Amino acid sequence: MVQQLALDATFAALADSTRREILARLGEGPASITELAAPAGMTLTGMKKHVQVLEDAGLVVTEKVGRSRQCRLGTERLDDAMAWITFYQKLWERRLDGLEAYFTLRTNQNTNTTTNGESE
Amino acid sequence: MVQQLALDATFAALADSTRREILARLGEGPASITELAAPAGMTLTGMKKHVQVLEDAGLVVTEKVGRSRQCRLGTERLDDAMAWITFYQKLWERRLDGLEAYFTLRTNQNTNTTTNGESE
Repeated sequence: MVQQLALDATFAALADSTRREILARLGEGPASITELAAPAGMTLTGMKKHVQVLEDAGLVVTEKVGRSRQCRLGTERLDDAMAWITFYQKLWERRLDGLEAYFTLRTNQNTNTTTNGESE
Repeated sequence: MVQQLALDATFAALADSTRREILARLGEGPASITELAAPAGMTLTGMKKHVQVLEDAGLVVTEKVGRSRQCRLGTERLDDAMAWITFYQKLWERRLDGLEAYFTLRTNQNTNTTTNGESE
C-alpha cells in the first residue's frame, strides 16, 4: 500500500514537463529556486510549488543556504517506476503474441478449408 | 510540445493504483466496465472516469458492444515514458559518479596533506 502511494507520487511528479525539466537541470548540478525559475519564465512561488511536489516524491532534496534554497537530485532513482513500466510492456507483448497466435490459427484454418477439396 | 503533452498524459494516467490495476487486468484480456468495477469495489461511474483517463492517454481502447462497453489495451506501449526514465537514471548515475570523483579527490588531497610530513 505504501509502495503504491509512493508510485502514485512518483508518476504524478513526472506528469508535468516543467518538473521533468527541473530534474534534467538538477542532473547537471545543484541550483537555487531563483536559478530554476528564471529559464522557465516562472515566478518564485510557482517554482517553489513544483519543487515541493518533486521533494514530496523524493526526487529532489532542498536545503536553506543563507537567503536562498538550494535544490539537488534526491535519492529516488525511479527504480519502481521503471519496474512497473517493464512489467506492463511484458504484458503488452504477451497480449500481442496471443493475438498473433489467434490470427495465425485462423489463417491456417481458412487455408485448410480452402485446400480441403484439393488434398482430400 | 505535442510529445511533452502526451508524456504528461501518460504519467498522469499511471499516477493512480486503480488505473495501474485496470491495465494489469486488461493485459490478461478484454473486459467490460462492469467486470472491471466489481473487483475494485467501485461504481460504474467511478470506473468509467478512470477508463476515460486511460483512453485519453492511448493506454486503453473501448468499444460499445450491445449494452456494455468492452475495454482492451491500446496501442501506447509506454516507450516514451521508458525512454524518459532511462534518460533520468543516466543523469542520476552521472551525478553520483561526479560526487564519487569529488570525494575521492578530497580524500586523496587529505591523505597527501596528512602524509606530506612523512614523505617530503
